Amino acid sequence: MDRRISDHAEILVDWSARVERGDNVVLSVADGAHDLAVAVAEALGERGANVVATYDSAELSRAYLRGHDDDFEENPAHELALLENADVYLRLGGGRNTAASVDVPSDRRQAYRRSRTALREARMDTDWVSTVHPTRSLAQQAGMSIEAYRKFVYTAVLRDWESLADQMATLKTIFDEGSEVHIEKDDTDLWLDITDRTAVNSAASVDYDSHNLPSGEVFTAPADAEGTVLFDMPMTVDGMRLRDVQLSFENGEVVDFAATQGESVIRAILETDAGAKRLGELGVGMNRGIDRITDNILFDEKMGETIHLAVGRAYDACLPNGEMGNHSAVHTDLITDMSTESVLSVDGEIIQRNGTFRWEPGFET
Amino acid sequence: MDRRISDHAEILVDWSARVERGDNVVLSVADGAHDLAVAVAEALGERGANVVATYDSAELSRAYLRGHDDDFEENPAHELALLENADVYLRLGGGRNTAASVDVPSDRRQAYRRSRTALREARMDTDWVSTVHPTRSLAQQAGMSIEAYRKFVYTAVLRDWESLADQMATLKTIFDEGSEVHIEKDDTDLWLDITDRTAVNSAASVDYDSHNLPSGEVFTAPADAEGTVLFDMPMTVDGMRLRDVQLSFENGEVVDFAATQGESVIRAILETDAGAKRLGELGVGMNRGIDRITDNILFDEKMGETIHLAVGRAYDACLPNGEMGNHSAVHTDLITDMSTESVLSVDGEIIQRNGTFRWEPGFET
Repeated sequence: MDRRISDHAEILVDWSARVERGDNVVLSVADGAHDLAVAVAEALGERGANVVATYDSAELSRAYLRGHDDDFEENPAHELALLENADVYLRLGGGRNTAASVDVPSDRRQAYRRSRTALREARMDTDWVSTVHPTRSLAQQAGMSIEAYRKFVYTAVLRDWESLADQMATLKTIFDEGSEVHIEKDDTDLWLDITDRTAVNSAASVDYDSHNLPSGEVFTAPADAEGTVLFDMPMTVDGMRLRDVQLSFENGEVVDFAATQGESVIRAILETDAGAKRLGELGVGMNRGIDRITDNILFDEKMGETIHLAVGRAYDACLPNGEMGNHSAVHTDLITDMSTESVLSVDGEIIQRNGTFRWEPGFET
Repeated sequence: MDRRISDHAEILVDWSARVERGDNVVLSVADGAHDLAVAVAEALGERGANVVATYDSAELSRAYLRGHDDDFEENPAHELALLENADVYLRLGGGRNTAASVDVPSDRRQAYRRSRTALREARMDTDWVSTVHPTRSLAQQAGMSIEAYRKFVYTAVLRDWESLADQMATLKTIFDEGSEVHIEKDDTDLWLDITDRTAVNSAASVDYDSHNLPSGEVFTAPADAEGTVLFDMPMTVDGMRLRDVQLSFENGEVVDFAATQGESVIRAILETDAGAKRLGELGVGMNRGIDRITDNILFDEKMGETIHLAVGRAYDACLPNGEMGNHSAVHTDLITDMSTESVLSVDGEIIQRNGTFRWEPGFET
């Protein structure tokens, strides 16, 4: 076995999920993630954990959903019992065709999702972590050979997470203590209010309230926004390509938008509900192992020298006690490149210029 | 999709497991059974059942067991909760390498099995059915091309089960009412006492107490045995080849044995415990869709014009109320060809001669 696969498994089990002897683990295996699943199973055996492996196949889901008549039973008892008795949920993504279930009617998919609220909550109550095995299908989506894509994924995943967590702690402190964030670059002049909000040091471990591997971002929930921002990193949302989305905010709400591609997708998202026009997240990508976009949000939003903002739902972890954050059915991340001709400041102090943080070598004051 | 796969799925869901709307189904998918799983998922969606798909991979099990230290937790709560809340358990066998886990130490495998008694009982309390998807690995084990093997499997599975159940009912009545079974052929002269025992009409449906697809056998539990029997159908037991096993019985117990190949395996089985020297099963294969042995007991023992006897554990369903049947940790089936120069009689009446039953055309009185 490729040594990198077992290294990936060890980081997932030990650093990310903190699995201990006797933990009841649900191991969700995508239909292309077999090799990673074998390595994770070995690590779980070594830790003395108890494993139920579930099979996560988009082709199975598609067949089931297309066969069904929409009248889904709420939170089936056997699945709920499995999740409520689980301590850890490890999701190994990596399918064999990212388009495998595009022909499931979206109202059926939504009815199914609505019928599973308690299941989702039970899963979120575990120490859950989501990661991916590099498959040919994901390599194709990224426009890369499988060899190059594997190298990309393992460079992003096999990091010194403890050291990255320390660096990210510096930015978290700045955000926690700061009030006014300013982002400046070409076609971008945006002010965000983060007073009293708490940033998350997302270091790919449940001990940091971080549930993705790889991770490597510091994020918080802005309370207000003023100005304009250009998202110049292309991405795919709901199967549609988005390019150069531009949003203008007044009093925290989007008042104007444009895009060179996919404008109708942006319109549909912004019109979902009242909260969809407000920001739910400001995130700063700090994983320098991710040096290109691969059309996979799990990786793209953590890319070093980028910032992402999400319209829609805010994370509770970022909000002051008792305060409701922005509420919405959507949470759509959009990414802007900060590597050149750009400045990130907090309360008038420059934190990052042209992708370099002020505590890094080469920072120009 | 191959139409035979969806036909297989429909028989499994409707005839075998009798799935109904709202049933909580656990769908156990072997790592080579993806295509059958997709077809079963569609059928389950159409019936309005609720599905949890689990991943059954010998490579995963091997890795987990080899990683573990033998000190297994008894019946982990999350897996037990899943099974105790399930109505139906469908096992789709069909791996990619029948030797995938041969290098797991057998004491570890046994320790693992012993730690899972309640899980096994919970599974047996559901309407469970075991079937297989034809994989290249199973074709190889059978010494067949994949195309020929697929044809073989679907000929065995896609039958008119209702009509076969009717034919098998005739033999069940004879066994239920009979006392003394006599099997005669070359090197075989065996008397079995089946007084007061109840035969099972194993018609591949939970409604017939039958949990294999394909099935097609009538079996009962002999109380006593006298004489000698030659098992001339070769088979693999515990990874070792057996040929021409001969057993001699006195007062129901094996007093002599021989084999042209694998004698040490037979010795080990017979020496397991006291019950291992006595018969637990007399079965008559009646699935004429199975016309050759393929080194897979799920198929071999149901082959038309064969009889199998098992040393070891008897099935409770065959025993009079309150009577303990033969008890043993083993249940090893051995098969003898009845297609030529052979006679099966019950209480002096010939039931089958040279493979033809007395109610079939061509029977010679």
